[in-house]
Amino acid sequence: MSSTAGQIIRCKAAVAWEAGKPLVIEEVEVAPPQKMEVRLKILFTSLCHTDVYFWEAKGQTPVFPRIFGHEAGGIVESVGEGVTDLQPGDHVLPVFTGECKECRHCKSEESNMCDLLRINTDRGVMINDGKTRFSIKGQPIYHFVGTSTFSEYTVVHVGCVAKINPAAPLDKVCVLSCGISTGLGATLNVAKPKKGSIVAIFGLGAVGLAAAEGARLAGASRIIGVDLNPDRFNEAKKFGVTEFINPKDYDKPVQEVIAEKTDGGVDRSVECTGNINAMISAFECVHDGWGLAVLVGVPNKDDAFKTHPMNLLNERTLKGTFFGNYKPRSDLPSVVEKYMNKELEVEKFITHHVPFSEINKAFKYMLKGEGLRCIIHMEA
Amino acid sequence: MSSTAGQIIRCKAAVAWEAGKPLVIEEVEVAPPQKMEVRLKILFTSLCHTDVYFWEAKGQTPVFPRIFGHEAGGIVESVGEGVTDLQPGDHVLPVFTGECKECRHCKSEESNMCDLLRINTDRGVMINDGKTRFSIKGQPIYHFVGTSTFSEYTVVHVGCVAKINPAAPLDKVCVLSCGISTGLGATLNVAKPKKGSIVAIFGLGAVGLAAAEGARLAGASRIIGVDLNPDRFNEAKKFGVTEFINPKDYDKPVQEVIAEKTDGGVDRSVECTGNINAMISAFECVHDGWGLAVLVGVPNKDDAFKTHPMNLLNERTLKGTFFGNYKPRSDLPSVVEKYMNKELEVEKFITHHVPFSEINKAFKYMLKGEGLRCIIHMEA
Repeated sequence: MSSTAGQIIRCKAAVAWEAGKPLVIEEVEVAPPQKMEVRLKILFTSLCHTDVYFWEAKGQTPVFPRIFGHEAGGIVESVGEGVTDLQPGDHVLPVFTGECKECRHCKSEESNMCDLLRINTDRGVMINDGKTRFSIKGQPIYHFVGTSTFSEYTVVHVGCVAKINPAAPLDKVCVLSCGISTGLGATLNVAKPKKGSIVAIFGLGAVGLAAAEGARLAGASRIIGVDLNPDRFNEAKKFGVTEFINPKDYDKPVQEVIAEKTDGGVDRSVECTGNINAMISAFECVHDGWGLAVLVGVPNKDDAFKTHPMNLLNERTLKGTFFGNYKPRSDLPSVVEKYMNKELEVEKFITHHVPFSEINKAFKYMLKGEGLRCIIHMEA
Repeated sequence: MSSTAGQIIRCKAAVAWEAGKPLVIEEVEVAPPQKMEVRLKILFTSLCHTDVYFWEAKGQTPVFPRIFGHEAGGIVESVGEGVTDLQPGDHVLPVFTGECKECRHCKSEESNMCDLLRINTDRGVMINDGKTRFSIKGQPIYHFVGTSTFSEYTVVHVGCVAKINPAAPLDKVCVLSCGISTGLGATLNVAKPKKGSIVAIFGLGAVGLAAAEGARLAGASRIIGVDLNPDRFNEAKKFGVTEFINPKDYDKPVQEVIAEKTDGGVDRSVECTGNINAMISAFECVHDGWGLAVLVGVPNKDDAFKTHPMNLLNERTLKGTFFGNYKPRSDLPSVVEKYMNKELEVEKFITHHVPFSEINKAFKYMLKGEGLRCIIHMEA
């Protein structure tokens, strides 16, 4: 039992008071974990596009003041009532979606879309009592996707916490709690390319490069990267991308370009941009008979996916995935092990580091499109 | 060696001289099989919608005079050069698509869309020499999808012939050479419902009922039949359909009706109408997390399949299939065995019989939507 268990903890957190305004490091009060909750000491967190998207709050319901952050690594400080499979000192990754282990999705072999703990970006409170665990002088500060890792301490539902190998360096594996696993799992769990396959990856940001890393691990013979930014190809080579196509360089649809370069189409494609035209191209560039396209990127509200149904009838498959089809508690520990076994190269994704006090720099890097992942060191 | 081997055979065939006009029983000359071809004596053939569609020739390139027919059972009369795995006397099902066993599709575990012998509805000649094997007084009569089974004798590429158990009654298993296998395979090979699943079938014609039969064989707990014709439900019960939904009875989209009746959606759906709205409904009625929709019905040329991409990202899968993903030569013999083992009930599909001389009656039954399959007895 830690000496802080059951007590309010006063610590530093980066609070977003308003949409799009720099975060402010504040002293917050973090209440003890309630039933089925755990309180975590966050050691490292990284910034993901989703944080920036909801911080900008363009087109969404704004929920402020709020503590963002959902890619992180930490240590359990204390546990609430009913928590039996975690204890203080456990090394963990908090996750923006959960696994209750009781619902139809958790019991299904195929789904990871837990009914109880599925991502909810509008909710700023904990589900046990509908309240926040963060406050500043009595003012509630809202949570973000149940994780709020831009705080030295945070409270998370036990179903959103993956217990990992304590030997894993948290400053590295923290990036596995969102984007990297999303891309990696899209390839390894959903696209499942066979050894020697040709795989196309649409979008060479962190998620797309993680999808490429998955294709590399699966033994793909060719990995075709598609991106509108030609600067990304050099970086992408490190992730196994063997060829680069910039759709801007051609007068015809990129799916036709790809079909010509691959004798009819790729075996697998993974779409990581969320752009609706890229989604359609990613589907139409797969080979008839066996081609499979996996959609990862999140589209706009009013987008419509549109294709001629013969493209499907000619034995193509179209699938979507969420968090790479990983169940957070059951599967993330094995992703960490892939890093420990030196299969998965996590270091390639980490391009920047900042101390917690300079967290706004991480936002600047991302807004400029500079680098892949910036690790924020809570104790630095 | 039969006495007719190497000789022209004069026999009766039902010739379509013009689009939409009754077939005329004529004496035709059937040339001997060339390289990689076999000549078959057809004993039983049945009528499928595809024959009627191309006989009506609305919107397609008309190819006349032509001998239609592609669901049939027969016996090998003679074989051409290079044919090693068939011999005179073998019991066979000719198939409208083929399996060369050499191309990438044939070598793929997933595809049955043979590059050499894939269905070609515009071609009226044999691929070896670009000519027909049928003629009347020197006038060439064109083939249909490489089978032309409305003839006492026909010539077929060896790759389009499935050798089956000689004990199988050809007057029954002849229907397995197209529509029934298409529906059955869509469920068993592509949708693959687990025991206890809920399956929706769109369109309760012969193909849809075969898809339902597949769901019944797979142990589905509920099979929901969707059709605009309420008369079809009684028939459908024999094929395991447990519930019936007529979209006309509701003010909301049928996918919403199905979701309400199934706590969020079915586990699998199979679309057998070819109607684009039914295709969209069939996709959108499957459960998030694990739902899989399989498209079977052939759409119009200008149709667009349209859905919100979040329907995919919520872990739904959309696949199309062709001929139930069966490879004709490798897989059809085992479908026949399913009938021989009394798993698959073929008799339920056979609602009418006519002698060859009355083949036009079979067209009338189909145009009236009466019954499922009409067996045409060549020797009656």
